[in-house]
Amino acid sequence: MADLPERVEIAEEGPREGFQIEPGPIPTADKVALIDALSATGLRHIQVCSFVNPKLVPGWADAEAVAAGFSPRGGVRYAALWFNENGLKRALAFRDRLSITGSVSLSASDAFSVKNLNRDHAANLDAMRRMTAVHKAAGVPVTRVGVMAAFGCNYQGDILPEQVVRTVADGLAVAQEAGETIADVSLADTMGWATPTRIERGVGAVRERWPHLRIGLHLHDTRGLAVANAHAGLRLGVDRFDSTVGGLGGCPFAGQKGAAGNICTEELVLLCEEMGVRTGVDLDALIEVGRMAERIVGHALPSELLRAGSLDAFRRKQAA
Amino acid sequence: MADLPERVEIAEEGPREGFQIEPGPIPTADKVALIDALSATGLRHIQVCSFVNPKLVPGWADAEAVAAGFSPRGGVRYAALWFNENGLKRALAFRDRLSITGSVSLSASDAFSVKNLNRDHAANLDAMRRMTAVHKAAGVPVTRVGVMAAFGCNYQGDILPEQVVRTVADGLAVAQEAGETIADVSLADTMGWATPTRIERGVGAVRERWPHLRIGLHLHDTRGLAVANAHAGLRLGVDRFDSTVGGLGGCPFAGQKGAAGNICTEELVLLCEEMGVRTGVDLDALIEVGRMAERIVGHALPSELLRAGSLDAFRRKQAA
Repeated sequence: MADLPERVEIAEEGPREGFQIEPGPIPTADKVALIDALSATGLRHIQVCSFVNPKLVPGWADAEAVAAGFSPRGGVRYAALWFNENGLKRALAFRDRLSITGSVSLSASDAFSVKNLNRDHAANLDAMRRMTAVHKAAGVPVTRVGVMAAFGCNYQGDILPEQVVRTVADGLAVAQEAGETIADVSLADTMGWATPTRIERGVGAVRERWPHLRIGLHLHDTRGLAVANAHAGLRLGVDRFDSTVGGLGGCPFAGQKGAAGNICTEELVLLCEEMGVRTGVDLDALIEVGRMAERIVGHALPSELLRAGSLDAFRRKQAA
Repeated sequence: MADLPERVEIAEEGPREGFQIEPGPIPTADKVALIDALSATGLRHIQVCSFVNPKLVPGWADAEAVAAGFSPRGGVRYAALWFNENGLKRALAFRDRLSITGSVSLSASDAFSVKNLNRDHAANLDAMRRMTAVHKAAGVPVTRVGVMAAFGCNYQGDILPEQVVRTVADGLAVAQEAGETIADVSLADTMGWATPTRIERGVGAVRERWPHLRIGLHLHDTRGLAVANAHAGLRLGVDRFDSTVGGLGGCPFAGQKGAAGNICTEELVLLCEEMGVRTGVDLDALIEVGRMAERIVGHALPSELLRAGSLDAFRRKQAA
């Protein structure tokens, strides 16, 4: 218990990650309303949209409208996602509203790179060198290395900690060549292969090699272990997590139709707060936003907390 | 990682716990088919039915038919549940097919006792003394103390480890007065209040006081933390867990309509096996039984694994 961090930073990715996977179009006004509701819960990091090709991801054809539509709240960082120069340009148009930083995004699984991006690790490194130059030219700092499939891969199987370390090293080298300084590494369990033991080994290996880097976890609940994996991370002092309200999102990868998406923000907040790790989030307000997300997508979301309610709600009843 | 047990014993409670909460009657043949399918997965402990008043629990009006109907498999212990002398008598009629042992069942929350059993802790202790005498008279050994609401209660709020220790002590005293020897203590998170920290403290307090007792955990996934709580138990060497296939069951207690039931057996097996803790269970076979359970109840069950599939299934694809 002694290893738990005092507080954690939660990056809410529900608006961005959650809506692109829904079959029907989500009205822009609903996306904006969700972002504004999230920003009122105490969350300080919200990823609001994806500047991607609307032909490939029709759900984000309204990225500009969403980026222009939300009401910025003081103290909250709003982020977005892009994959190429055009996407970055579109994001930069909202520089006054969005926090724009670049990352070097790699995969610990070569097979996943090929399936997901249609290029192998070497080609992906080249692409990241070009993208880093683009960021640099635009005056956008590149501060993070992201490693997808860091704990296992549907196309390649188990991923060893050494593969994660090699991938991080490659990402750091790309940044260094460009004179950029990486502060954060994000390890993503893209397809739900992590277990608490794998988290311990993967995080441990990266931390041993680069003790000064801040490690974040991007967890998916594909097989129901996301909260246990988050706890394993917390025990190692990991204090940065991505999550989605209600568990919005899913897993678009082979053979996993209907599988769960990211770890639910509510369950992550409950886990932390009930163990004395501060999140800054009002859980009851967040649960209401989760229920709002369910109304927006028109179906139940994976979060069990949306049905059960917080423990504080019961504590208040007894105190009353 | 060093604290993980080498193997765990899983008591499958899906047939008993899962069907009593379903609104429609489940055909006896389906119940029997599920039990027989479960016994083919490698599970060694299966709770098959509840000998309760059919007027109070209509879903178990067919307890005798189920107890008579399944096909016993060598090496598998089949258990049942009862709450009074009449229930025990009905169970004893199947002594050749069922493993019959008694337990002293208490609640760490007085308020829960009153709400759930309509008697306070003192009255419940009296009832347990009478029931222990009934077991003894029938030649049924009383081997376990069960503690409900061991980590928190919807009606009473937080439960401290000291309350759990007091409750276990009361249960042990009831058994001792009757000359019975308790080997197992089961701590139940009846309403989903546990966190990994509370598991560590509760299990730790009981183990410190009674190092020779085997501690089991009965976890509910009411708020999505069940797998993390199981992992916290495993780290302390806990090697006995109750669970239900698919996450069958629910939470009939105040304000939690639609809340999840017990920890899913599949997710517990995945957690254990992927960390090198043996369960003896064939996970892919168990996932198929989970899908069968979904067909029987006619709706999706909480288990994420039913949709995502095991990791071994993907490993085999790559090996092929």
